[in-house]
Amino acid sequence: MTVDTAWPELSELLGDRITRSKSELEAHGGSESYFPLTPPDLVAFPETTEEVAGLMRICARHGVPVVGWGAGTSLEGQAQAFQGGLCVDFARMNRIIEVAQGDMDARVQPGLTREALNDELRATGLFFPVDPGANASIGGMASTRASGTTAVRYGTMRDNVLGLEVVLADGRIIRTGTRARKSSAGYDLTGLFVGAEGTLGLITELTLRLHGQPEAITAAVCAFDTIGGAVRAVTDAIQMGIPMARIEFVDAATVAVFNSYADAGLDEVPHLMIEFHGSPGSVAEDAAVFGDIVADHAGRGFQWATDPEDRKALWTLRHHAYWAILASRPGARAVVTDICVPISRLAEAVEATQADLEAHGIAGPILGHVGDGNFHAILMFDPADAAELGRVKAAADRLVSRALDMGGTATGEHGIGIGKKGFMQREHGEAWSVMGALKRALDPENILNPGKLAPDAN
Amino acid sequence: MTVDTAWPELSELLGDRITRSKSELEAHGGSESYFPLTPPDLVAFPETTEEVAGLMRICARHGVPVVGWGAGTSLEGQAQAFQGGLCVDFARMNRIIEVAQGDMDARVQPGLTREALNDELRATGLFFPVDPGANASIGGMASTRASGTTAVRYGTMRDNVLGLEVVLADGRIIRTGTRARKSSAGYDLTGLFVGAEGTLGLITELTLRLHGQPEAITAAVCAFDTIGGAVRAVTDAIQMGIPMARIEFVDAATVAVFNSYADAGLDEVPHLMIEFHGSPGSVAEDAAVFGDIVADHAGRGFQWATDPEDRKALWTLRHHAYWAILASRPGARAVVTDICVPISRLAEAVEATQADLEAHGIAGPILGHVGDGNFHAILMFDPADAAELGRVKAAADRLVSRALDMGGTATGEHGIGIGKKGFMQREHGEAWSVMGALKRALDPENILNPGKLAPDAN
Ligand SMILES: Cc1cc2nc3c(=O)[nH]c(=O)nc-3n(C[C@H](O)[C@H](O)[C@H](O)COP(=O)(O)OP(=O)(O)OC[C@H]3O[C@@H](n4cnc5c(N)ncnc54)[C@H](O)[C@@H]3O)c2cc1C
Ligand SMILES: Cc1cc2nc3c(=O)[nH]c(=O)nc-3n(C[C@H](O)[C@H](O)[C@H](O)COP(=O)(O)OP(=O)(O)OC[C@H]3O[C@@H](n4cnc5c(N)ncnc54)[C@H](O)[C@@H]3O)c2cc1C
Repeated sequence: MTVDTAWPELSELLGDRITRSKSELEAHGGSESYFPLTPPDLVAFPETTEEVAGLMRICARHGVPVVGWGAGTSLEGQAQAFQGGLCVDFARMNRIIEVAQGDMDARVQPGLTREALNDELRATGLFFPVDPGANASIGGMASTRASGTTAVRYGTMRDNVLGLEVVLADGRIIRTGTRARKSSAGYDLTGLFVGAEGTLGLITELTLRLHGQPEAITAAVCAFDTIGGAVRAVTDAIQMGIPMARIEFVDAATVAVFNSYADAGLDEVPHLMIEFHGSPGSVAEDAAVFGDIVADHAGRGFQWATDPEDRKALWTLRHHAYWAILASRPGARAVVTDICVPISRLAEAVEATQADLEAHGIAGPILGHVGDGNFHAILMFDPADAAELGRVKAAADRLVSRALDMGGTATGEHGIGIGKKGFMQREHGEAWSVMGALKRALDPENILNPGKLAPDAN
Repeated sequence: MTVDTAWPELSELLGDRITRSKSELEAHGGSESYFPLTPPDLVAFPETTEEVAGLMRICARHGVPVVGWGAGTSLEGQAQAFQGGLCVDFARMNRIIEVAQGDMDARVQPGLTREALNDELRATGLFFPVDPGANASIGGMASTRASGTTAVRYGTMRDNVLGLEVVLADGRIIRTGTRARKSSAGYDLTGLFVGAEGTLGLITELTLRLHGQPEAITAAVCAFDTIGGAVRAVTDAIQMGIPMARIEFVDAATVAVFNSYADAGLDEVPHLMIEFHGSPGSVAEDAAVFGDIVADHAGRGFQWATDPEDRKALWTLRHHAYWAILASRPGARAVVTDICVPISRLAEAVEATQADLEAHGIAGPILGHVGDGNFHAILMFDPADAAELGRVKAAADRLVSRALDMGGTATGEHGIGIGKKGFMQREHGEAWSVMGALKRALDPENILNPGKLAPDAN
């Protein structure tokens, strides 16, 4: 087998930082998602770009698939080695290389987690905004084009990665982008590797755009009687150009979970969670205008969280929503949907989702980054009940279908992996074959995360 | 010759909307730049995507180069058919297809100019921010990844194109992106075609992100004794997170031109031109904080333009700077440089440029979008004096060299064409060969704008 012939060279390169131990293989074989455990054949823990390039060259020679691993929190099976091969875990490449305060950027290694980055940045007055619910790695976040609660203001990984160092399928090392804020010097390679799920190269360094910690922050929750009212308040606020830093929707079922999981003490009706960043004056002004819009949609019960502790509690609640929801049904797992639609269709999309889930008797709290038109349903199922999983997956498929019919996308932020691959042809048409051509151009032997995202090699 | 064998089919397809008339060929053979007139063999004026696809298929079969033409204002020879072939002028594909107010986006044809778009949008309360000095076409702007005075706040074409319709080298038609605000569904094809200078496909439709016309706008000019003072005021303002909508630098020579060209009545010292967008309160607050920063750098002589007429006059002055500068030396032409450096190096870069030009006796007013770290020198020369052109080009090369040494880029917004191709290897290293691989993957016969941007086919 190819892995066996590669093994002596690989272990000579990395010594005891490459392993076939069963526990490590299993730790790198699963995910939070519904896919079965699929351990890779080997797990490596490189410490330098040169080691990653060395691994790549050996694997290329022996035809061994190579799959990157950041924090393993992706939800569409992206980091699972379904075809076996080498899992490259970036845990030991987790340093901040440089913070350039004057340029408001930072060079980091891919294994750094977003929380560790922001802990380090605290004293600098800067922060990195992209915040998926999990404490993901920066390399993994770039690879899935992640976003989170702040994308409505600060953008996604697409907007916040300025440049990359990448190891290509043949082991060559390239750099994309410069330290300049913008450039018209050729094809946007940075943008091509961001969101590529490790199918075009392994990211070994990232230059990130940082943002100034806002002078003033104010956050709030407010209640609505209907989903439509809450969502329409958001679309109005967007259209009026109110600069929301965060705007999250949670439905009544999610609020119920917040109450039982964390004693949130909220009315069990749909809520918005909102935050403004700016100067004390602008934040007050934004909050006042937003208050008027909410009132227009019969929103009420504003609870403002101005001190940092209360705000932290609010957003921790939001970031832990997934686990809180799972905890509400002991033993359950979940299929997490992730559609994104044009803002004008958002209310309709959320309402149709809720109606569909109700009609099919599926428990699926709905919540999301509604400022982008992006929301999730957490569709719970009993892992021992294949029929329930089938029903849940069918509901997830209907959700995506509706999003595509509305001019939206199958995934706003979680990505494709294998879970959403079935929708690529429908979403992109002929453009999916162009993605295949790019994949073949950069990875002709199809050894980088084979089977994910791109059309299958023929 | 290939063009002759293709001609009967091409003219059957487009009738009198394809021509070999000398005047049309010459009108599509030059640019504002220093490259010699190089007329294409044919000029076509398609009206539909299907016609563009038809042209492409015929040209592919006969091996005829195809070069897109928007407004022909690009500065690095991008739209010139140096290898002959068919020039596809998009002038007749210049409609707004749809403005979706609720989603704040618009679908447009590539030949639409930015001014025509904004004229149409005025009544909607929305606008499209990207504003190169020339009245360029939206398709050309996307293809060069253009920006302008507002990029510091609203981003460049990279940030404001949500999706495309593209005719590929073999005549297939694809759509990239969706109407959703963000997506993680595969490789970012939109981003790949933006900035590709028509070397990967012809853009036949664009979905653009629009922005709300700000409730309040205020603009100003202020004077500085030194270039360093002006530029450092800008970097301070950026680092303090002041949300500037526009921040432009003009040196003393440019101001002198403003005075003679338009009676601007300004002190002939370096100036900043600035604009704030927001609510009346936030705009006043931003202006006050900015005023303090300017004072810290010995800036003075603030002239505020709050009424629309004064503001318009101010930005018209800026947008006409290039022609005003040329007019200051009758008969002159210019090499326009376009480097972009990390903000922290900007003052140094501008000062070094001025010192270099002075040392070499070259007249080259300096101005630029300093909020992005991007600036231009307009290096004038007498077109009859080859030696002067040589000196000017050598100075332009030194400028780029310094930018690359500082971690910047050879072009912030004008692009590569043939003018900057000589710097691609140095700026990108091995990554340039990856651009070559992408070019070969999407245009294996090298018929789309051959010779531009990508490494030469071997
Ligand atoms: C509770 C929960 C909440 C979540 N909330 C959000 C959310 O709000 N927004 C959001 O966007 N996502 C969310 N996610 C999904 C997940 O956190 C993101 O997809 C995240 O970006 C994955 O990062 P990771 O480090 O875990 O990557 P992994 O899962 O380790 O890997 C993801 C993909 O990137 C590849 N990869 C990893 N590192 C590299 C590298 N250095 N070079 C090349 N390829 C690499 C892998 O091969 C894989 O294809 C959530 C997940 C959970 C479990
Ligand atoms: C006075 C002056 C000031 C300027 N100021 C700025 C500035 O501030 N910022 C800035 O970014 N630029 C500036 N420019 C440069 C120029 O305006 C930009 O490069 C602009 O984007 C070019 O647009 P265009 O429509 O003229 O494109 P063209 O010159 O016609 O074409 C540009 C490139 O795009 C290709 N192309 C055109 N249409 C299509 C299509 N539909 N599909 C595929 N490819 C196509 C062409 O083949 C060519 O490679 C300035 C130029 C001048 C003369």
